[in-house]
Amino acid sequence: MSPNLQARFFEAPVPLTELPTPCLLLDESRLERNAARLAAHWKDSSVCLRPHLKTCRCWEVARRILPSATSPCTVATMGEAEAVASLGARDIVLAVGIRPSLFARARALMEQGTDLKVLLDSRTMAQALADYAREQGCTFSVLLEIDCDGHRAGLAAQDPELVQVADLLRAAGQTVAGVLTHAGSAYDCPDVASILALAEQEQEAALQAAALLRSRGHACPIVSVGSTPTALLGTPRSGISEVRAGVYLFMDLVMEGLGVCTLDDLALSVLTSVIGGFPEQGRQPARLLTDAGWAALSSDRGLERRFASQGFGLVCTMEGSLLPGIRVAELNQEHGMLSVTAHPDEEVRETLMQLRADSRLRILPNHACATAMMHQSFYLVRNNRAVALLPRFGGW
Amino acid sequence: MSPNLQARFFEAPVPLTELPTPCLLLDESRLERNAARLAAHWKDSSVCLRPHLKTCRCWEVARRILPSATSPCTVATMGEAEAVASLGARDIVLAVGIRPSLFARARALMEQGTDLKVLLDSRTMAQALADYAREQGCTFSVLLEIDCDGHRAGLAAQDPELVQVADLLRAAGQTVAGVLTHAGSAYDCPDVASILALAEQEQEAALQAAALLRSRGHACPIVSVGSTPTALLGTPRSGISEVRAGVYLFMDLVMEGLGVCTLDDLALSVLTSVIGGFPEQGRQPARLLTDAGWAALSSDRGLERRFASQGFGLVCTMEGSLLPGIRVAELNQEHGMLSVTAHPDEEVRETLMQLRADSRLRILPNHACATAMMHQSFYLVRNNRAVALLPRFGGW
Repeated sequence: MSPNLQARFFEAPVPLTELPTPCLLLDESRLERNAARLAAHWKDSSVCLRPHLKTCRCWEVARRILPSATSPCTVATMGEAEAVASLGARDIVLAVGIRPSLFARARALMEQGTDLKVLLDSRTMAQALADYAREQGCTFSVLLEIDCDGHRAGLAAQDPELVQVADLLRAAGQTVAGVLTHAGSAYDCPDVASILALAEQEQEAALQAAALLRSRGHACPIVSVGSTPTALLGTPRSGISEVRAGVYLFMDLVMEGLGVCTLDDLALSVLTSVIGGFPEQGRQPARLLTDAGWAALSSDRGLERRFASQGFGLVCTMEGSLLPGIRVAELNQEHGMLSVTAHPDEEVRETLMQLRADSRLRILPNHACATAMMHQSFYLVRNNRAVALLPRFGGW
Repeated sequence: MSPNLQARFFEAPVPLTELPTPCLLLDESRLERNAARLAAHWKDSSVCLRPHLKTCRCWEVARRILPSATSPCTVATMGEAEAVASLGARDIVLAVGIRPSLFARARALMEQGTDLKVLLDSRTMAQALADYAREQGCTFSVLLEIDCDGHRAGLAAQDPELVQVADLLRAAGQTVAGVLTHAGSAYDCPDVASILALAEQEQEAALQAAALLRSRGHACPIVSVGSTPTALLGTPRSGISEVRAGVYLFMDLVMEGLGVCTLDDLALSVLTSVIGGFPEQGRQPARLLTDAGWAALSSDRGLERRFASQGFGLVCTMEGSLLPGIRVAELNQEHGMLSVTAHPDEEVRETLMQLRADSRLRILPNHACATAMMHQSFYLVRNNRAVALLPRFGGW
């Protein structure tokens, strides 16, 4: 394993007061609980869990949730695929549409023994892939992307082009490994009932597309669905072979807002130092400044149309207790501006009045993927002490 | 110089079709023109330009704008300060409030011969710094932050606490190097006249604060102002000793929206591949998918209340010609969703209909600092060919 991707466990647990700020904290027990929840939801099905590593981008986290290093996983970039392959992964889905500038890198991974499956949803791209494969004398394993909800990409489950693309690939000697869909519109669901309905729609689209392809002689072994809300709440149907999810490991304010989890499930937070706005001379603090700007939190506004009151994040004590009445109201690059309601609870008021030059707070992020992306590593936290530094991999 | 921060110039210019995507392009001639513009604006004053390197985070760019490696510069994090010090910088302002967890690193930089100036705006932090300095037997050089516009941080120019903080530092044997203010509310200015007025207000606040401190026996040699809009448009006043700006080197859609520059000044763009939504079978393309999601562009919405039509970025051909009627409408982590108006210009329509599997576009970002932050390096572009790979430094 590349040394700079290796977790570094500390000889003794480190108090949070001794960590540099801003930094990313990952609560170990919540991570484990979140991982166990998805596994339990699908345990009676024959489905294979294929965790999406784009959220954690961390091999130590992946190893804790994968049955073995070579178990199926999902990534979002070729850089992530190369990183996990170098760490031992052997069965990888690259779940963002392939493009010609990645063909050579995909081939290199396959030549090194990785079962890499690439994704596409157009004859344009299928033809380009087939042309490249013919030139190079190689065989790609291809998943066809299905659009289950008009969210982003993919062909409709009944689109005749789906069969045309599959036929084109087969004729060019390529492997049609199956179909993949992603219910990205789960983030727009107004309630849990809508998520349940969307999960059904997601599975139905994948099953329909697979049935269509099979009726034309394509074996279509993989039928892959997933998004954290639909994977955690949907009712498993027979015929689905794989489920993908990523943010379920960390959870965030978006997932809490959707009703997928509670605030107590949020495993990821940003540790920050108060750098200004101290309540000096008994003044009521109205505007606290921290060192966690968008460079540490991202500019992701989450579900702001529905949860505007959360701003760019909710605020906790260093130990993780929520401070009601405070939110991250504005962000600059390296400044977080916390706003305090005029009349916070007595307990919150007490906490604020005790802020000193070395005081620290924790921010619960809107969007775990986006916040994690701003950091090179996490501190793994056990009982409010850091026990390890976990490097993140990534890039394109 | 650390080899991984060294620019790598290519033996021959590389066509943009051969670069991996998504990637960051930096147009050399626009960079040079933007740098020259700020220098020209202040050339008749005795002001020292102290470029803010938080935008570029790149020593090759810094070296092109600094008179020498040891010339004054500004940074936003201790990690940036340590990086530029290791590269030869000797006169550094850390323009975000200092906090105790950084005291030891600041001292280490000073002991290595760097003239590092730190920033604070409260007795709380001044006392913590003084206590640390006494324990360690060291002397910090401190700038006092002045609030010129209620934007973020600082003490009002006439706040009695300003003198108290300065006196506290002096009594503790620390150096009061001067005052610093930042007209961050320039981003809220409705027109250029407002920016001009704000620039005057910014300079006035800094001059007033310096006068107050001098009346109490503090020499206050540094009187530092800056933000890209006020630095480029404001009328220089006597007594201002330093001007800071960062985004002026790259410009972006926010600066264009504020009237500070034109679209032709934008030096930074993201090169992206089209991965889906091809206009096959003569269909009108309505939703193009690219590989530049928020992981490549950031989630920064710029001045969305004023320029909602720009979405997350404007779209150009690979060569940089604007495609009117197209914008980045939505972003996922690794997907950019471009929306096309129902009736684009004939020329734009033509361009879209010619999209192939290996087609590339360029995205002009809302906020150059935020977009650049998502990348480890730039490609320096001369005449639409990449001539070098420039690594970025950073971290906290």
